[in-house]
Amino acid sequence: MVKFKGYEFVDGGVCAAEGFTAGGVIAGIKAGNVTKRDLAMIYCAERCRTAALFTSNKVKGAPIIVSKEHLKDGYAQAIIVNSGNANTCNPDGVEIAEEMCELTAQALDIDENDVLVGSTGVIGQKLDIKPIRIMIPTLSKSLSKKNSGDAVEAIMTTDTRKKEVAVEFVMDGRKCHVGGMSKGSGMINPNMATMLAFITTDVAIARELLEKALRKINKLTYSMVSVDGDTSTNDSLFLMSSGLAKNNEIICEDKNYELFENALYAVMMNLARETARDGEGATKLLECIVTNAPTEDIARSVAKSVISSSLVKAALFAADANWGRIMCAVGYADGDFDIEKTSVELASAKGKMTVCVENAGISFSEKVAKDILSEDEIKILVDLHCGHESAVAWGCDLTFDYVKINAEYRT
Amino acid sequence: MVKFKGYEFVDGGVCAAEGFTAGGVIAGIKAGNVTKRDLAMIYCAERCRTAALFTSNKVKGAPIIVSKEHLKDGYAQAIIVNSGNANTCNPDGVEIAEEMCELTAQALDIDENDVLVGSTGVIGQKLDIKPIRIMIPTLSKSLSKKNSGDAVEAIMTTDTRKKEVAVEFVMDGRKCHVGGMSKGSGMINPNMATMLAFITTDVAIARELLEKALRKINKLTYSMVSVDGDTSTNDSLFLMSSGLAKNNEIICEDKNYELFENALYAVMMNLARETARDGEGATKLLECIVTNAPTEDIARSVAKSVISSSLVKAALFAADANWGRIMCAVGYADGDFDIEKTSVELASAKGKMTVCVENAGISFSEKVAKDILSEDEIKILVDLHCGHESAVAWGCDLTFDYVKINAEYRT
Repeated sequence: MVKFKGYEFVDGGVCAAEGFTAGGVIAGIKAGNVTKRDLAMIYCAERCRTAALFTSNKVKGAPIIVSKEHLKDGYAQAIIVNSGNANTCNPDGVEIAEEMCELTAQALDIDENDVLVGSTGVIGQKLDIKPIRIMIPTLSKSLSKKNSGDAVEAIMTTDTRKKEVAVEFVMDGRKCHVGGMSKGSGMINPNMATMLAFITTDVAIARELLEKALRKINKLTYSMVSVDGDTSTNDSLFLMSSGLAKNNEIICEDKNYELFENALYAVMMNLARETARDGEGATKLLECIVTNAPTEDIARSVAKSVISSSLVKAALFAADANWGRIMCAVGYADGDFDIEKTSVELASAKGKMTVCVENAGISFSEKVAKDILSEDEIKILVDLHCGHESAVAWGCDLTFDYVKINAEYRT
Repeated sequence: MVKFKGYEFVDGGVCAAEGFTAGGVIAGIKAGNVTKRDLAMIYCAERCRTAALFTSNKVKGAPIIVSKEHLKDGYAQAIIVNSGNANTCNPDGVEIAEEMCELTAQALDIDENDVLVGSTGVIGQKLDIKPIRIMIPTLSKSLSKKNSGDAVEAIMTTDTRKKEVAVEFVMDGRKCHVGGMSKGSGMINPNMATMLAFITTDVAIARELLEKALRKINKLTYSMVSVDGDTSTNDSLFLMSSGLAKNNEIICEDKNYELFENALYAVMMNLARETARDGEGATKLLECIVTNAPTEDIARSVAKSVISSSLVKAALFAADANWGRIMCAVGYADGDFDIEKTSVELASAKGKMTVCVENAGISFSEKVAKDILSEDEIKILVDLHCGHESAVAWGCDLTFDYVKINAEYRT
């Protein structure tokens, strides 16, 4: 976890913020599989100002169509999510996603238009509503401030780690919180948002600013993650604010807005980073830091190009300092700049090493390189030496297990 | 091999066309490895009108810089190529590439400005000129019409198959030929040309038309291949015309131009297809045929998106009809169209099966699907039902061996 001054990591994930409870149960959605929780609910005692971002894929899961409709007034109070089936490319998908919202609204005694819905799993298989219908009442009764972990487990598919983060900070003398959870391990190349991410806060803030902050921080975090270059059909990112921290409502981009934005960054950046680390089959987290680019877009494009390259990913799986592949990926990134100035360094907890200066190799110890690259967090530092902009992107190595998982996923 | 009426496949590859000879020898370029030929030469008795296309990567191998310079007058007479080292990102790369041309010119008694050069292999390691200097005289003496196979072997790296094709056809009552060879197995996402491809012809044709035909056919063939999405630093495609078929020189886009263009397509399409089939670690050739697109660009973009998707590639490795991943890749392709009309079929020598109609799954027999997808050539037919344009792209499956090869390549 990357720490930030003034923000303390706390337990509770999406339940850390005042007003929120969550839960997760086993419904047996994927072919009656009852070994793992697969139905999650997040609920707030108050109606929440809510901002959202969805996938840019033209194929959109039915839950996205329904959630967008329910968010037209900018408010939500609960989220219902299943794993094991994406409810995408199904003729009756929208009806089923709507029924999930209705059942949730009935169980919680709230308006069904205040329920958002998410689904993740295999595309193009009919989602059976029966196990969901049976389990929603039980799930609603299990909601608690202590159960965010159950909710996280219930949205996992090929994920191997529970991804939840929350921070506490002080605003107007009040304790405030931003917390979140996300899932995603394959089909990860978010283009707007990642597969599924739910963020909550008790900070009181105007809805336009909630949306503005979400867009900005998403661009710096989830949008800079790639596991396999496949932009999912179901990417959904929700940010709900209960306002229960009782701070003076943030209504302009002042210091408090900045304080909130930084909290959002601390949570979303760490969730995004953990998503990359938990990429399907991954053994290493790759972080590409691009500096001194002529524009921010070029910095972003170079950073994403490097962490998305199959060849860079496979070389780092083998702890091989094959920096030529890094330069190759820098070279095919979008945007014009003078490649002859580029230098590359590799770093980890074991040290730092320059491997390329002005687009040409320099001699280095293969033994030291192997040592540095054998760590499980690798930094690739690309200095373009032709401007002042920078960007960071996160990815993971390409391993035998990625192929294994994805050659066997559906069956 | 895909056959075309009026064009007969013949032996000889780059030597099928009148005037051309070739050879390949063992020089021990990669760390003294002497188990495989690694230095190739192609020579024509006449100076040839020559067209070329090079990588769009900003990082360019030294041979590209030198070949571009030597092609300024539009003529060439010989090509010298090594495998085992890409001669890219080396401080003295250009000098070494120039020396390769000088040595070749001396041995053949031609102008060094008429020699083109190519290199393929690892990036960023110094290319030792010594073994090349020693072997060029021997290589030049071994040139023969029968040795195109040795030349092909000498340019292979991780390739497992020799890729050479030649066709014979009649123009103005004369026997004409187009032949070619190419290498490429990883770092294959040609964006202009593929890694290395050399095409020869004896058809007499104006230089501008030679260039025009090369651009057009490249766009339909090599530019529609992807193995791993990595655009190489060394992509080079040369087309040399000796004019020795003695046809009336083609000087406008008439029937003979069309005859030549189709011959070029027959050769380059089959080479491109074989490149995809021989992708690193591949067990299957994937061919995505997109029809009824609103524009040709959208057809191209959808076809390439599908064959580039890691998830589609891994599913097909397992012969798994996970068509949801295909729709996902169709959905994130560039360009606007109505996704709700899209249908998908899967086909092979074993039969054809519809899996998705109007962006929704339809029931099918998993057993029949497995049977169809267990073949080594798979067609993915995507009908967008919203226009009249079409495109074809070629790729391969993603396998354990791709990871194995690329985790171990440099060391």
